[in-house]
Amino acid sequence: MEQQTTLKGACIIGQSGGPTAVINASAYGAIRAALDAEAITKVYGAEHGIKGVLNDRLYVMDEEDPAELELLRNTPSSELGSCRYKMKDPDKDDTDYKRILEIFKKYDVRYFFYNGGNDSMDTCNKISKYCQKVGYACRVMGIPKTIDNDLFGTDHCPGFGSAAKYIATSCMEVSKDSTVYDTPQITVVEIMGRHAGWLAGSAGLATHFGAGPDLIYLPELDFSMEQFYADVEQVYARKNKVLIAVSEGIHYADGRFVSEAEVSATDGFGHAQLGGLAVRLADALKARLGGVKVRGIELSLLQRCGAHLASGTDLAEAELAGRAAVEAAVAGQTDRMVAFRRVTEDGQYRCEVELLPLADVANYEKKVPLEWINAAGNGMAQGFIDYALPLIQGQPERPTVASLPRYAKLKKVLAK
Amino acid sequence: MEQQTTLKGACIIGQSGGPTAVINASAYGAIRAALDAEAITKVYGAEHGIKGVLNDRLYVMDEEDPAELELLRNTPSSELGSCRYKMKDPDKDDTDYKRILEIFKKYDVRYFFYNGGNDSMDTCNKISKYCQKVGYACRVMGIPKTIDNDLFGTDHCPGFGSAAKYIATSCMEVSKDSTVYDTPQITVVEIMGRHAGWLAGSAGLATHFGAGPDLIYLPELDFSMEQFYADVEQVYARKNKVLIAVSEGIHYADGRFVSEAEVSATDGFGHAQLGGLAVRLADALKARLGGVKVRGIELSLLQRCGAHLASGTDLAEAELAGRAAVEAAVAGQTDRMVAFRRVTEDGQYRCEVELLPLADVANYEKKVPLEWINAAGNGMAQGFIDYALPLIQGQPERPTVASLPRYAKLKKVLAK
Repeated sequence: MEQQTTLKGACIIGQSGGPTAVINASAYGAIRAALDAEAITKVYGAEHGIKGVLNDRLYVMDEEDPAELELLRNTPSSELGSCRYKMKDPDKDDTDYKRILEIFKKYDVRYFFYNGGNDSMDTCNKISKYCQKVGYACRVMGIPKTIDNDLFGTDHCPGFGSAAKYIATSCMEVSKDSTVYDTPQITVVEIMGRHAGWLAGSAGLATHFGAGPDLIYLPELDFSMEQFYADVEQVYARKNKVLIAVSEGIHYADGRFVSEAEVSATDGFGHAQLGGLAVRLADALKARLGGVKVRGIELSLLQRCGAHLASGTDLAEAELAGRAAVEAAVAGQTDRMVAFRRVTEDGQYRCEVELLPLADVANYEKKVPLEWINAAGNGMAQGFIDYALPLIQGQPERPTVASLPRYAKLKKVLAK
Repeated sequence: MEQQTTLKGACIIGQSGGPTAVINASAYGAIRAALDAEAITKVYGAEHGIKGVLNDRLYVMDEEDPAELELLRNTPSSELGSCRYKMKDPDKDDTDYKRILEIFKKYDVRYFFYNGGNDSMDTCNKISKYCQKVGYACRVMGIPKTIDNDLFGTDHCPGFGSAAKYIATSCMEVSKDSTVYDTPQITVVEIMGRHAGWLAGSAGLATHFGAGPDLIYLPELDFSMEQFYADVEQVYARKNKVLIAVSEGIHYADGRFVSEAEVSATDGFGHAQLGGLAVRLADALKARLGGVKVRGIELSLLQRCGAHLASGTDLAEAELAGRAAVEAAVAGQTDRMVAFRRVTEDGQYRCEVELLPLADVANYEKKVPLEWINAAGNGMAQGFIDYALPLIQGQPERPTVASLPRYAKLKKVLAK
């Protein structure tokens, strides 16, 4: 939807869902573009996403030191605060929507930018449609974000490239570390991604460069403990050491997550175990292979916030996504999400921005194509490498103090 | 002990104990200096430390491409392979020593360099004394290495600064990530260091720069679960979020490791738990504080092999230690370990090499001085910050291919 007339008023920028290494770069792109836009009279940052709107907790971004704002590029996690808040169907309960409208009117908000993943685009879509329904002029734009890379309609998501780079680099290092003795060792690395295997697949970049997992398991395929044992035993027989990467979301054919499956004798979990998936699988292999040394490593939050290892490409694209959302809205667009289209010319990767209807992207999940998984179902095919490698390129300059990261220090002045 | 005459012959360089981000930089320093030394006729690298000597598995370093050798600086873990092998008392069983002497004679080995921590210096010392006893001229030098930083007699150890930098940076990132929602959250980060708290203490560098753990527990002090609960509850009441760093080696007053202590109702572990210490403590806090969201994060191998985040100071000093060992031996020294003395002039840190008798350093452990821990026993004092900060300085150039680390690829030609 495009509106030709100039719309003057304030804007709100909100961050939502799980943080990433570069979501603040998107915030910076949006805030900077909004501060520079003539049509935008005031720039508010919502504290903890939509909750900040509902609670009338808005930070005045115009009050911030520009140099500190720029350091948002260097600051992992969601500096404005995030939330996981599911908006109700406005046809059933419009309480929240009325409140949002009230706040929009109070601050003359005519632009709303929401930065997040699937659920956040749903929020964004509902608010956009509600404003249209009640005839309140507000341009609403979604800015994509998720390390999980499962947003529909965009080639990839800001946040994924940096997480992928962290995972690949860490797997290379663990591969080196876990093979140092002449004694047998099995190491299982657990990687985020409940429903899509983009992140676990990124461990395949390490393997591609000769120091990565021997076996990789994604949630796109059903997991079989018997096949897993057979795969591991084959590698183990050959070299006495096995490095395995698993997505946290691997599941049996009946849909049960391996991480949550009932303890049973048949699947090798002979006694109650409460550790994470990596520890459970490592212990099962220890029992199976007769006391071999095992280690489970969960990359946990580290893979999500590893800003010191951010991909330069991802960082630049995250900022671009924020800026593009503001510029498109000021130019008349609304009800859209910023998306990326990949252009490959002469083997060179290039990323172009396009705008997708919010309704088309909200709530759909994009999974790893099965042809990018190897035939044995335990590793990545070249298609995945070709897809992921351009996204992790570039080591940006990272401001430091005493060789430790220097993060943005915002004043966070609340609007009255 | 100093020998004035020139000693001509081959040398062996071995790596031992747990790997680090920079142990290969020490290997490079030693190998490069040995290749350049006129007195040294051949340079061997032992496969898996002293085991490679016992098994007659020696790599000929003279055969390696110099450019690949130099990439050892960029390669984490022990590229020659490591071992954990405890040498027997030669007065009780000299089988291994006779075998080592046989190999030394076979290859005319007159220089032996061993790179490792406490146990490795014990190995080094025993071999040195045995050579002296049987009158075999061989100059033996220890090169210090341990992320644990617990080697006696040296201001600090190569490997520690890089691990400390990894820990501090990761804690800063986790601090940002784990405070993003407006809901309560408690996060426990488990850090290596069984008997000394140097590594866990390094989390205090993050706190010093405003984004680190609220509470830090070291093995230098007895751990009390009641005091721990009181500490956590105090922070929790104030800000709803608590980030805690614990050394894996924390123990009760009776010596039992908290990680291994029997499950009991009194210490809050109400049901059987097999996860690591971080998960156990997080679960105990969840039970105590009534279902608050908790997360345990174990830095595991990542903190030991995080070469991408190596300290430039540590890297340079690691290489220096290797080179200094060779140069000192060629100049006539033997039966010594390379150690570091800290010189501070006009507030500037400088590191000088000194040589300590092997017998003085073997088997002694250096702990964090109690005055460097705060009065409450749950954080670091300024003395520790002043000590550790210079050791993490500098971001060295790291060779990459496609934005991932480029590690050394050695030919590893075995000596005949």
